[in-house]
Amino acid sequence: MNTSSTSSGVSNGTSPLEDKRHTLAHLLAAAVRERYPHAHPTIGPAIDNGFYYDFDFSDGERPGDGDLAALENAMRDILASWSEMSGVEVSKKDARDRFKENPFKLELIEEISGKGEKITLYTAGDFTDLCRGGHSENPAKEIAADAFTLDRIAGAYWRGDEKNPMLTRIYGLAFDTKAELDAYKEQCEEAKKRDHRKIGKELDLFTFSELVGSGLPLWTPKGALMRHELDRYVWELREKHGYQRVTIPHLTKKDLYETSGHWQKFADELFRITTREGKEYALKPMSCPHHTQIFDRQPHSYKEMPQRYAETTMVYRDEQSGELGGLTRVLSITQDDSHVFCRHNQVKDEFFKIWDIIDTFYATFGFKLRVRLSFHDPAAIDKYLGTPEIWKNAEDALRGIAKERAADHFEAPGEAAMYGPKLDFMATDSLGREHQVATIQLDMNLPERFDLTCINEKGEKERIVMIHCAVMGSLERFTAVMLEHTGGVLPVWLAPVQVRVLPISEKHTAYAKKVHAALAGQGLRVEVDNADESLGKKIRNAKNEKIPYVLVTGDKEMTEETISVESRDAGKQGTMKMGDFAARVGEEIKKRA
Amino acid sequence: MNTSSTSSGVSNGTSPLEDKRHTLAHLLAAAVRERYPHAHPTIGPAIDNGFYYDFDFSDGERPGDGDLAALENAMRDILASWSEMSGVEVSKKDARDRFKENPFKLELIEEISGKGEKITLYTAGDFTDLCRGGHSENPAKEIAADAFTLDRIAGAYWRGDEKNPMLTRIYGLAFDTKAELDAYKEQCEEAKKRDHRKIGKELDLFTFSELVGSGLPLWTPKGALMRHELDRYVWELREKHGYQRVTIPHLTKKDLYETSGHWQKFADELFRITTREGKEYALKPMSCPHHTQIFDRQPHSYKEMPQRYAETTMVYRDEQSGELGGLTRVLSITQDDSHVFCRHNQVKDEFFKIWDIIDTFYATFGFKLRVRLSFHDPAAIDKYLGTPEIWKNAEDALRGIAKERAADHFEAPGEAAMYGPKLDFMATDSLGREHQVATIQLDMNLPERFDLTCINEKGEKERIVMIHCAVMGSLERFTAVMLEHTGGVLPVWLAPVQVRVLPISEKHTAYAKKVHAALAGQGLRVEVDNADESLGKKIRNAKNEKIPYVLVTGDKEMTEETISVESRDAGKQGTMKMGDFAARVGEEIKKRA
Repeated sequence: MNTSSTSSGVSNGTSPLEDKRHTLAHLLAAAVRERYPHAHPTIGPAIDNGFYYDFDFSDGERPGDGDLAALENAMRDILASWSEMSGVEVSKKDARDRFKENPFKLELIEEISGKGEKITLYTAGDFTDLCRGGHSENPAKEIAADAFTLDRIAGAYWRGDEKNPMLTRIYGLAFDTKAELDAYKEQCEEAKKRDHRKIGKELDLFTFSELVGSGLPLWTPKGALMRHELDRYVWELREKHGYQRVTIPHLTKKDLYETSGHWQKFADELFRITTREGKEYALKPMSCPHHTQIFDRQPHSYKEMPQRYAETTMVYRDEQSGELGGLTRVLSITQDDSHVFCRHNQVKDEFFKIWDIIDTFYATFGFKLRVRLSFHDPAAIDKYLGTPEIWKNAEDALRGIAKERAADHFEAPGEAAMYGPKLDFMATDSLGREHQVATIQLDMNLPERFDLTCINEKGEKERIVMIHCAVMGSLERFTAVMLEHTGGVLPVWLAPVQVRVLPISEKHTAYAKKVHAALAGQGLRVEVDNADESLGKKIRNAKNEKIPYVLVTGDKEMTEETISVESRDAGKQGTMKMGDFAARVGEEIKKRA
Repeated sequence: MNTSSTSSGVSNGTSPLEDKRHTLAHLLAAAVRERYPHAHPTIGPAIDNGFYYDFDFSDGERPGDGDLAALENAMRDILASWSEMSGVEVSKKDARDRFKENPFKLELIEEISGKGEKITLYTAGDFTDLCRGGHSENPAKEIAADAFTLDRIAGAYWRGDEKNPMLTRIYGLAFDTKAELDAYKEQCEEAKKRDHRKIGKELDLFTFSELVGSGLPLWTPKGALMRHELDRYVWELREKHGYQRVTIPHLTKKDLYETSGHWQKFADELFRITTREGKEYALKPMSCPHHTQIFDRQPHSYKEMPQRYAETTMVYRDEQSGELGGLTRVLSITQDDSHVFCRHNQVKDEFFKIWDIIDTFYATFGFKLRVRLSFHDPAAIDKYLGTPEIWKNAEDALRGIAKERAADHFEAPGEAAMYGPKLDFMATDSLGREHQVATIQLDMNLPERFDLTCINEKGEKERIVMIHCAVMGSLERFTAVMLEHTGGVLPVWLAPVQVRVLPISEKHTAYAKKVHAALAGQGLRVEVDNADESLGKKIRNAKNEKIPYVLVTGDKEMTEETISVESRDAGKQGTMKMGDFAARVGEEIKKRA
């Protein structure tokens, strides 16, 4: 299965807000050229939340973050005079003449004319740019001068290729109104506080090493424990529905992917290996082709169907290094993958079972879900495996299932996996951001390619279908989304340390250890903090690490054989017996409250 | 850590039995030349349990398995006349003249003379061969004519290189006495019955796919469950001793292995990857370098030492494909690896803890253990990392620990890992064969190379040491050894299916399902066999699959709400209440009886 969709779909026309953002990119270039006449503008598109423009400043001074305010004011001054923006088609020669000092634009002109496309120039005020169009017609009137801001400066390679020169990218934010801009900035501030990389460090969940490389997270004891608990929860839900674990290696001969079609269609993203004997292997980018080989080890009677295989395992995709960051895009992707091999008449039941698992899992974290029906792009059928008929049947089946389930859903052509349409679950987090998480995929292609069958009631071979599902999607991405959603306040069942015992002074250490032993014996994850630090510091540390329960133990507790309980979520709970506390927390854990 | 040692040590002189085997190789060549004058003998060494000789028969008839008896008899006839065997040094020219029709011997002669070594010919009876020596002086007297036999014919590439011509290899078995030969043949017969590949298929534990490739086992639901139980047992033992799980990817930039030394010293066995951006990565052949990066993510106070990391994960080594077979040599090796980061004065305690874990684990299966102190080869110090002093200190420490533990142990120079000496545990199985299984390794080199320290009582950085351990070694190899040791009769805690319910006829199916639900509710792994087959066939199937408990349910049981229990190991147990049965089996599982 495929959980990290990289296709962006095909844009048909632009929205008014997109046009404003695109216009603002021109405006930025105009302001830059005014203040830095040596700058070569290169490319400047509209993006989510705003725009950017890449400049080559190598012939002179280069602006820094401190110059953004002045540039922004210059943009506002120029904007007042841009009452009109219009385009004109020109010859290649005219275009080359106009940009003869800008090697980047000259390269673009060659490219456009090489494709046989029209070359157009757009002008507003004194500023003309090579451009395909999509702007506000009257920028001065349409664009609110207080609804945009310059955000930051970053480096970017020309055309995104690290062999090319490094350019200077200036990012701007832009919305229809100042209120929307402010709301977005506030959300960003909150998101920054909740950045999963920051929380991951504070809670000591994962780390990166320069020697190992970016995109390859190393999970510390606490992080590995949290992963283990997450995976165990998904497994519990699956086990109830008759799933069985299987285990496969991360490697295969290329033959497997030639049969599955990945060798051709997934080519760029495959990590390929040539052995010392010159044989060609690949790292698995997904588990489905291997799983077909387990299913196919022996014939299966219809009585044994469905077969439901589950495996949480790392898959590997050769992502470009510029795209790697934190846990959201990694080279080693831990998928909690499952494959159901079933008959056509079992598809709906199996989908509903999986849907139940997904609903239960995400409700535990308080995520709201809606469902995207990710269908194929009819205009690019060669990107996919299988015939239009197979696709129609599969997509009709999904449409029917979503309708019967009465789920909040919408259709998205062009978002399908290579071998079949998907139900993608979109989770809205506590900041109102939407993330693609779980996915269920209906696959009629791999069963064809691997000739997978069961023996039906008549003793005949019958073609089966496969259902792919990942509940968390990738464990890395889910962890990132979940940490930002919860702000690191993990529910007690998931917290690596559930209880911390703080002896008030050294003479209480022995009793603290007794408390530790008693609670650990009840299965709680408990620590004693006996560092040489003040009680105040220890309490602050526990708060920073978001430990669900802190037990301060001093003379009173020692004498009474009790503990004083402070809950992270519910405040001071007074003193209680150890057994009562353990029972209460045990109950919370069991309920995954 | 390194569990699959490939070095064979350096042989100093040969034993009398080895000399006999080598002499028999000559004898085989003499017999072959007598019957197949067109044959070109190439190379024929003594090996474990006997000898072989590789021949080129491409100029004429080639013997088959049916010809072995005649060849064996011819060998006995010739042997009677071989009362002496002696060598003589010859010039390169003389040697070339003698073997002018044998291109293989000519190649060997070039090679020997190229190295500046002496060329010697050995003659017995009418047969002369190019040879380094090491034979019986009086073969007719020393070699018992009934203590050898020709075993089988196989193909083998000249010099083991698949680019070279394919030769015909004839294998022989040879011992000092007929009794020893017979005992060995009997052991082989038994071993054949217990071949783990055969048992793995009968119990449906793992499978191989031609598309995925050899050396890459695929674990079925039953096999994955068994692996999971094995790993859980090791984890239980480790958790009691303060181990924590960590998780790392299978990939790293080459930088990690340049620092660790693997890039240079482990070169051939590394699977290397070049990304689409041209960056160099490798698949991990072991987990230790990654684990150092987790330890090194932050400073550690002496109070936090030792840190004990455990992780069961697949590592990858580029083995030659000719060496791959079943589970004993695989490309994807699941190591149940742990690394203790500790101070020098903690080494002994940590070794003893690990040793306890290993003793407990292997005793559960009835293996007898002895310990090999695998030390470095002083004559080849450049094969290892670190100075002779570091090695002396580490080896002295291991010697002291083994002595204090009063363990059955012996020293083996040349068997160390690249970065430190090891305690290798050798398990004797139920057929009397010895297998290398667990290993504990003391490593003073990686801490130097990665500059690993803790902050000691004086607030200073203090160099630490690492202890590597794998309890099962590789899960694949342990599974192979354990399946052959038990003959597939898995203890009930490990059996993928613990109980099978067999309804006598269709009218008992509903009750059988009730029994199933009750026992599954008690946590037993239970199945109902409701195939359209006779009870006799179902009982035979259960026996073949070595199911620990079979419950036949008919009228009597249904009426009385009982079950009739037949134990695989203890025979018929009569009827009992379901609750009593579940409690009894539950107790067995808990004790890992």
